[in-house]
Formats: sequence, C-alpha cells, structure tokens
Amino acid sequence: MKKVRVFAPASIANMGCGFDVIGLALDDVGDIIEITESEGDGLTIINKSGVPMPEDIEMNVITPVVRSFLQRIGKKAKIEVTICEKIYPGSGIGSSAASSAAAAYGMNELFGCPLSEEEVVLCAMEGERLASGGYHADNAAPAVMGGIVLIRGYEPLDIIKLPVPGNFYCAVVHPHLVVNTKEAREILPKEVPMHDAVSQWGNVGGLVAGLCTGNIGLIGRSMKDSIAEPYRKKFIPGFDELRGNLHDVGVLAMNISGSGPSVFALCDKNEVAEKAGGMMRRHFEGRDIGCEVYVVKVSNKGCKLMGISI
Amino acid sequence: MKKVRVFAPASIANMGCGFDVIGLALDDVGDIIEITESEGDGLTIINKSGVPMPEDIEMNVITPVVRSFLQRIGKKAKIEVTICEKIYPGSGIGSSAASSAAAAYGMNELFGCPLSEEEVVLCAMEGERLASGGYHADNAAPAVMGGIVLIRGYEPLDIIKLPVPGNFYCAVVHPHLVVNTKEAREILPKEVPMHDAVSQWGNVGGLVAGLCTGNIGLIGRSMKDSIAEPYRKKFIPGFDELRGNLHDVGVLAMNISGSGPSVFALCDKNEVAEKAGGMMRRHFEGRDIGCEVYVVKVSNKGCKLMGISI
Repeated sequence: MKKVRVFAPASIANMGCGFDVIGLALDDVGDIIEITESEGDGLTIINKSGVPMPEDIEMNVITPVVRSFLQRIGKKAKIEVTICEKIYPGSGIGSSAASSAAAAYGMNELFGCPLSEEEVVLCAMEGERLASGGYHADNAAPAVMGGIVLIRGYEPLDIIKLPVPGNFYCAVVHPHLVVNTKEAREILPKEVPMHDAVSQWGNVGGLVAGLCTGNIGLIGRSMKDSIAEPYRKKFIPGFDELRGNLHDVGVLAMNISGSGPSVFALCDKNEVAEKAGGMMRRHFEGRDIGCEVYVVKVSNKGCKLMGISI
Repeated sequence: MKKVRVFAPASIANMGCGFDVIGLALDDVGDIIEITESEGDGLTIINKSGVPMPEDIEMNVITPVVRSFLQRIGKKAKIEVTICEKIYPGSGIGSSAASSAAAAYGMNELFGCPLSEEEVVLCAMEGERLASGGYHADNAAPAVMGGIVLIRGYEPLDIIKLPVPGNFYCAVVHPHLVVNTKEAREILPKEVPMHDAVSQWGNVGGLVAGLCTGNIGLIGRSMKDSIAEPYRKKFIPGFDELRGNLHDVGVLAMNISGSGPSVFALCDKNEVAEKAGGMMRRHFEGRDIGCEVYVVKVSNKGCKLMGISI
C-alpha cells in the first residue's frame, strides 16, 4: 500500500480582466488530502475535513480526476482519498480546483510522476468540468503550478507561467453568501458588446505586459473587468463602495475572485493588504454578513507533496 | 517662414488577435510630407505624391490633425502641407495613419516640440476619426512611436510600447482590391460570442507575453483573430490557401493587416519573409489581381525628421 499527503492551494481566477484565462495561486490557504493506493479496483472518498460534501462520490470533483488519471496511464487501482482540510465550496477561491488539483497532483506523485505538469492540469480540469459544467483551467492551472498563469488557449491547452515581479499580497474576503459557480456563469450573457470585448483584451495585454516588465502601476490599472463584473457584482452588497475604500488605502486593484462572492485586493505591500483585509471584514460584518478574511502572499508554488509512504 | 520635412511609416494594425489595441510600425515604407508655417491663418494642402486624393481639404485627414495641434497649443498660423510621398489609400497598411502621424509629428517639430509623444498620437487620432469614423490608435500610435505598441485603453489613452525581441520581418502584400476602412468596420458584428472573445484575450495575453519574454513560438501561435478575420477574409480571394502555403515556408503568422485587404506575414528571418513575399505575389497575380509586395523590417523608429529650415 502506498500513500501520499498533498496540499493544493486556493486560487483566484480572472484577476479582473483575464476572465477564464488568468489565475493566481495563494500561499498557505488550500486543501490537504491523502491518497492511498492498494491492489484491486474502485474509489472511496472519506471526508474528515468537517466541511459538508455530497455523499455520492459521483458528485465529488475528485472522482472524475482520479478516473481520468488512471485512464491516462492505463492502470487500474483501488484508491482511497481522505479529505483532511477543505476550502469551503462556493467561496470563490477555487474550492473545486483545489480538490481537483490535489487529487491530480497526488495521484501523479503516488504513481511515480508519469504525467507532465500540463497533463496533471488536464486531469484536474475534469473536476472543474463536474463543478461548473465548463472546461476551464484558470483555477486548476495555478493551483497545480503556482504563480500567475495565463491559459492562452484550450484547443490545445496552452499554459504560460507569467513572471510574478516582487512580492504580491492578496487580501481575500469570503462573505457568507453562497454563489454557485454554475449559476454565476449562467447569468453572463452569451454575447458581449464589441466595445467591452476590446477594452477587455486591451487590459489583458496591459496586465501581461505589466507582469512581464515589473510595471506595478500598469498591473493595477489593467485589472478591470468589463465583461463579468457588471453582472456578478450584484451578488455582493456594497461592492463599489468597498472598492472605493480599498483604493483609498492603496491597493493596486480590487476584483471579484472567479465567479464570487469572494473579493480580493492585490497589493504590493503586506501592510496595505492587512489594512485591506480589516476593511473587508468591517464592510461585511457591518452589513450583518459573516465572513472569513485571508491575507496571504501570491505563491510561486502550486501543489506540494507533504508526505509519502511506500 | 519655417519648414520641416518628415517621414511617417506604414503600420500594421491588430497583429491578428489585438483588434483595435495592437499595431506595429514598418521600416522605410511610408508617407513623406513637408510643412511650412508662416504668419497669418489658414491651411493649404498640396498633393505632389501622384496618389489621387480628395480636392476638398475637409476630406483630408491632415486637416483635423493640423487644427487639433494648433488648438492644443493655442496658436494660429498659416500652414502649408505638401504631400510628397503617400501610401495608397485603402491599402490596409495604415495609409490614413501615416498621413495623420506625419502631420502631427511634423507640426510638433515645426513648433519646437511643445507636445509629448502621447499628445502627438492624440492629434494623429483626429485624422483616424475622419478616415474611419472611429477613434482608434492602433495604426497612429506605432506610426508615431515605432515598434510594437499596445493601446491598453482609450479613456484615458494608455499606450504601452512593447519589446520587439530580435529582428522581425514582415512580408506585406497589397492586392488591388479596394476595401474602405469604414466599410470593413461596418461588416463586423456589434456583439461577439463570449467564447470567441475569451479566445481573443487569451491570445492577446499570449502575444504580449511572447513579445516580453522573447518567446518566438508563443508570438506566432498567439496571432489568431477570432473576431474580425472570419468576416474580413471574405474580401481576400484564397485567404486560407495562402495562409497554409505561407505556414509551409515557415512564417510565424499570417493575418489581415488592419481592415485589409493587405495581408502580412510575420517572420523571424529575412529569407523567409522574402520567400513569403514571392508567394504572396504569385498568389494574387495567379488570380489576375495586381499587387504590391513589401518585405521590410519591423521598425523600432516611428516618425522621422528628415529636414528642417528656419
């Protein structure tokens, strides 16, 4: 019997303008799972995280990831996954991606790393497909690979790890408003005005140029979302007011994390991120909305192997 | 009486994915104008280029540029512009932008450079407004500044000069099919499918990352246009066949230049660009369509002062 214990980080999709194509990994916050392999066939998932999850394994994102991994390597095995720590689902900081990434990365470690990093992302994306009905990698790729990641295209998958100039910190708030990823995607229009689309790709170009050249001001002013934010911010009470206040304390940008309801502020100083975090807490608690706040570094590390026994 | 003689280069807008936000300047091909200033008021435009142009100066892009410049600096003057060499209008290599850029840059030189480079671009954009009905800088900015330029946003104008890694060459063909910029814009839909928009900004991110990090392969595979090309390529006989053939000789990418009908191939070797140019000529001449072919370097220089007398 072989066993691994792995960590997969939380992640923030979109970074404002990069809807479905850019994501970043966070330090320390994430999922921890253990996977054991023994002879035979079948999959068991045990949830010890304290976070409620569906009983039916067919509803758990880990299931399609494990199956996709085994199919890729052409093996059968009896797999038992224990979920030890889990980001709360619906938090908008890549809960399903963390589970999916942990499962894909963990399986790969368990079987002696037969897959490339990109193939590990492809396995993790099978979990994302179950969670949201879409096939996207803007959380899964940074969760696996760490740092800030661009998914240039999906046919075929083309993942570009972007430079992270200096130290970036995120203040992230998860207000206790459940927004289902699938629903948050469904409120978006199927077509977007040309003018907004042009703004969006101008900003994506600016964000990538800012990251590649270490132009912090350019990064901040490029993180604008003309496409999803106008629809999704309605789920978040006082969104514009919160943004105004956060800009006043010096954050580079504030956006919805993925499909929300979490909101994050990108900062180039830890003390600004700390201030932003406090402000976020007061914003929601003052509206009688419970929340968790994280102030964490943008991580250059994705999944981590925490232990292995053979 | 003061007089300047200036050159403004041809330019290629969009570079595939960067519709309305990216453009590059070409070496050697462009407009040459002379501007004289004397006491008094009024504007005269004399066309010695041999290229037919409207008699009415209100229809000439130079007019709003000169007026906008004088308005910005708060002066009156008697201006005479002589057009010495002119890119053929409707060629799709930034004919109106070259005139506009030459006028804006020339006026600025004539008056002792009171405006910043960005303000010169803003003046040049007044010419683009007359030519196309839109307010865009994806030809005007590279024509003024040279190199490869990203227009991150228009409100306010935010121009980012991108690195040009190594030597790039363009083979450009101008087939004698007149496509009016305004018409070529009007056939585009007002709304674009979300899926195509996401592809487009993934590619813009890839192109900018490729330029900034010197990843030539990434540059080439990012230069895909899901938005305008499907509509505009219909104006260009045998478009897909030409692309296939050009890729076979090793071009990095082939796209429509701006609104067309010119087509360009980006190459990282001069000999490939020469081959591509020959292929382009044979493609159109074989279809009884006359054409001009240019094989030129991507320029890091925009407008140039060729002479001044005071």
